[in-house]
Amino acid sequence: MEMALQTVGEVIMKREVQHAIQTGLFLDIAVDSRMEEFPELRKTIANDAGLYGVDEVLAYGICNLYGSIALTNYGYIDRVKPLIIGKLNEKGGACNTFLDDIVGAIAAAAASKIAHNI
Amino acid sequence: MEMALQTVGEVIMKREVQHAIQTGLFLDIAVDSRMEEFPELRKTIANDAGLYGVDEVLAYGICNLYGSIALTNYGYIDRVKPLIIGKLNEKGGACNTFLDDIVGAIAAAAASKIAHNI
Amino acid sequence: MEMALQTVGEVIMKREVQHAIQTGLFLDIAVDSRMEEFPELRKTIANDAGLYGVDEVLAYGICNLYGSIALTNYGYIDRVKPLIIGKLNEKGGACNTFLDDIVGAIAAAAASKIAHNI
Amino acid sequence: MEMALQTVGEVIMKREVQHAIQTGLFLDIAVDSRMEEFPELRKTIANDAGLYGVDEVLAYGICNLYGSIALTNYGYIDRVKPLIIGKLNEKGGACNTFLDDIVGAIAAAAASKIAHNI
Repeated sequence: MEMALQTVGEVIMKREVQHAIQTGLFLDIAVDSRMEEFPELRKTIANDAGLYGVDEVLAYGICNLYGSIALTNYGYIDRVKPLIIGKLNEKGGACNTFLDDIVGAIAAAAASKIAHNI
Repeated sequence: MEMALQTVGEVIMKREVQHAIQTGLFLDIAVDSRMEEFPELRKTIANDAGLYGVDEVLAYGICNLYGSIALTNYGYIDRVKPLIIGKLNEKGGACNTFLDDIVGAIAAAAASKIAHNI
Repeated sequence: MEMALQTVGEVIMKREVQHAIQTGLFLDIAVDSRMEEFPELRKTIANDAGLYGVDEVLAYGICNLYGSIALTNYGYIDRVKPLIIGKLNEKGGACNTFLDDIVGAIAAAAASKIAHNI
Repeated sequence: MEMALQTVGEVIMKREVQHAIQTGLFLDIAVDSRMEEFPELRKTIANDAGLYGVDEVLAYGICNLYGSIALTNYGYIDRVKPLIIGKLNEKGGACNTFLDDIVGAIAAAAASKIAHNI
């Protein structure tokens, strides 16, 4: 468990991962607060339209850094949406379209990193 | 069901998909019959070592053509290994390391194609 | 030439491509007008820091749909920055961090589509 | 220069990279010596048909581990084919379809790793 937490920390510290996190969170927040002039995009992201895939593309950008196991892990997590990821996906008032994929990608990446190091 | 079969047919007919199928199947067959001089690679592929990822890389090459939904589908299928894919993965005597991923990728791609067209 | 234009049109009409275009353009515009509360991300995107890679990740999301040739085309275009792409990259006052990559990806995708059809 | 060599060494030591190298080289050698029963695939690989993309897919599997810069580097290298890579691509008697892409991917990955660490 300690190893898991430490590995998550290492994944999060990686520069490319940080950029993906910041960009995704900005988009989620923007949907809630500053996309008045882009009503169509806003609606697409807000509803996490099954066919909007940029959130997954960003998640792959994270997973790719940790190899093909990370990608497979992520695909599974994205479908099953276990634990916190399911809750994020349910959403309360705020847009979490990118957040749940980012959390899923970080978890998938950390699990892959651990698998490769054992 | 008919649509599913037709879509699988369309996926399989795509040139890049055909190349991936042929290359993957050749590698599976080679493991069984002509890799004497590459004992380490042979062992790695034969055991589908959890850390050998070239079979997944080839599968992603197929899925990528059908968008991010296809990749997520594949990740799920690769983990859950439903139906025929589970049987392929169990293997009888022959090496199926690439075959199960290729079948999974074709199914994932076809499902994504259908989702985008509906 | 007519074929090139028509193919570009087909690429642009694809749903996943449209989502990538809209999201990228929104981010460019946001950098110019509504990222006050995200000064660090804004600075990173505005300067197209060589190490910010989300613009490329989005571009790959487009190229992947058109196979490995599209990805190679894009890598070349992104480095050489021919014609309009070079001008976009120079930027006048506005942020074009995502725009030049998106235009490059569309060109790379269209060229790949033509190569596969010939 | 020393740093470049050391970084290449680190890239090559990564498990997923090793698997890609071994698999690619096996395929090149197989084309020369043991693909009698797969004449079509053999011809496709031997001629590095511009539309055969599995060699690039394998190369992306390497580059992805080193971020989006590595992918762009590779696209450029694959097009310009500088130095040794151009010579490999010209081929003498032996099939180098995978070899030139693998060498290019390793170089692209190492350059990206250096860029991120500086």
